[in-house]
Amino acid sequence: MKFEKISLACGNGASENNALIEGIFYKHFQNEILEQSNDASIFEAKGKLAFSTDSFTISPLFFNGGDIGKLSICGTCNDLVMMGAKPKYLSASFIIEEGFEVKDLEKIAISMAKECEKNGVKIITGDTKVVAKGQADGVYINTAGIGEVIYEGISASSLSEGDIIIVSNSIGKHGASIFAQREGIELVSDLASDCASLWQVLKGVFESGVKIKALRDATRGGLSAVLNEWVKASKVCIQLQEENIPISSEVQGICEFLGLEAYALANEGTFVLAVPESEAERVLELLRANPLSAEAQIIGKVDKEYEGKVVLCSSYGTKRFLDMPSGEILPRIC
Amino acid sequence: MKFEKISLACGNGASENNALIEGIFYKHFQNEILEQSNDASIFEAKGKLAFSTDSFTISPLFFNGGDIGKLSICGTCNDLVMMGAKPKYLSASFIIEEGFEVKDLEKIAISMAKECEKNGVKIITGDTKVVAKGQADGVYINTAGIGEVIYEGISASSLSEGDIIIVSNSIGKHGASIFAQREGIELVSDLASDCASLWQVLKGVFESGVKIKALRDATRGGLSAVLNEWVKASKVCIQLQEENIPISSEVQGICEFLGLEAYALANEGTFVLAVPESEAERVLELLRANPLSAEAQIIGKVDKEYEGKVVLCSSYGTKRFLDMPSGEILPRIC
Repeated sequence: MKFEKISLACGNGASENNALIEGIFYKHFQNEILEQSNDASIFEAKGKLAFSTDSFTISPLFFNGGDIGKLSICGTCNDLVMMGAKPKYLSASFIIEEGFEVKDLEKIAISMAKECEKNGVKIITGDTKVVAKGQADGVYINTAGIGEVIYEGISASSLSEGDIIIVSNSIGKHGASIFAQREGIELVSDLASDCASLWQVLKGVFESGVKIKALRDATRGGLSAVLNEWVKASKVCIQLQEENIPISSEVQGICEFLGLEAYALANEGTFVLAVPESEAERVLELLRANPLSAEAQIIGKVDKEYEGKVVLCSSYGTKRFLDMPSGEILPRIC
Repeated sequence: MKFEKISLACGNGASENNALIEGIFYKHFQNEILEQSNDASIFEAKGKLAFSTDSFTISPLFFNGGDIGKLSICGTCNDLVMMGAKPKYLSASFIIEEGFEVKDLEKIAISMAKECEKNGVKIITGDTKVVAKGQADGVYINTAGIGEVIYEGISASSLSEGDIIIVSNSIGKHGASIFAQREGIELVSDLASDCASLWQVLKGVFESGVKIKALRDATRGGLSAVLNEWVKASKVCIQLQEENIPISSEVQGICEFLGLEAYALANEGTFVLAVPESEAERVLELLRANPLSAEAQIIGKVDKEYEGKVVLCSSYGTKRFLDMPSGEILPRIC
């Protein structure tokens, strides 16, 4: 690249814009469709497709366990996977603040390319905008993704009495580690975001023939938000056994510091499933065989006791409602 | 809505976030796929699809001839149309600055819905992020679109000697009017952006059976950028007759003030075509029948005289190269 910092001219649709696109994006995202450099990219499709989008505004841009680039690919691909789809094509759009370092942008692009590889997905169309200093915070990335549905019937409204709730991983690592970094909390441990591409885990589960009723990654709003959506959509109650919900001691420590509960903290590589009771052990076995979901646990069960409510049952036999989170929690977590 | 201004809590994935999504986005974008409210939306596909994305950061958000909402739908749908595709599905993702007025957001959503209607397109998936005050300028919108290819063979590299270059509209209106508004230039005229959905114009052209070789909307970088890309991709020369290029006197006036040329100014509802000479009159007639392209003109011809160059021929017989624009031109024009 002929320049070290992004200037307004890099977003003008002309020479400097082209230099940036070729020098960074085409270089790292290279594939035959993208390189046609058309207003829109063309691909051949058949059957049911899944379509999803997310904008990423996380701060800091580089964090333990990932960066905004990795997250922008995981986030959108995971949303496709949660609907039983194999990620196929992505768009990538950048809003960059004037003065942003080209070397940081390249690091982000390299992360994106690496994560695309893990998902077997191609970035086939994109856009770059540059805004003046103080009109963004470094870089914001939007990705939209298209996937081929290979597993049908997943739905938030399909839960029924007796279904088992499984979480794939210990919860709250993304939220807790971002918070710790922002606040400069020094930890002796290696607390890192769980940011990961879940296609690698769920491909095998989809192909195994087990029955999954509901599936969702517990991103913003955490475990609480997912389960509260499910009980409302399915008009059921979920009772959770508090002692079975995996939470690392590092996350627990940050939560005490924050005065928050790990249930509401964001995850970026952790998902929740509802499966028929007869399938629970098999699903657990499949998940535990993969390092990304080695901590998978059965955490609760669906019944009808308190319709529309998530109930947290302690080992002392006490019960309380786990509500949909509200308030600011942690802004710019993804 | 229970609140008048967007707060950080509106982007947290929990209650306030849901209130915003339901109170504004579901309300105005309503359709059965979006309302399923899944991580990804599912649709049935067949054949060749076009996929495109754009992020919109325009300032001011509301301008003569449109607003960021209208632009965010036109922009992405037009990119699909430029590849011969009928727009079908969109994603919409918002990055909103804390404190932004909910009523302005609703005005923008209403504009988007109206423009979706004109394109026959549905917003089926979306995302909302809120960043702190000073980390964005009002609102940025990303849309990604999927279209069904109904006209094949459009390509920037297909121009050959004898082809005719047609522009659909007088040029530079978007760039000139945005600039005039930003600078507070009072005009006695009604100069407005050309921002428009081009599916309405090109549907008829595609269906007419005429042959189109290349087609592109002259957005950032204007007419100059499009034609320079074409001469490079096709290894030809384009000679333009300066006096045939439609430029309104208002745009001309702003250009003189700016010290810029209308050729490099952005358009948001104006496109350029390259067609075989035998088709030129028929295409012109089809275009002029639509108010959005009533000013269509033949502006030049493809030859081999200066390969890779766009040449501007004046009525006095002088010639000069029209280069790819560079430099800052106008930031945040789209």
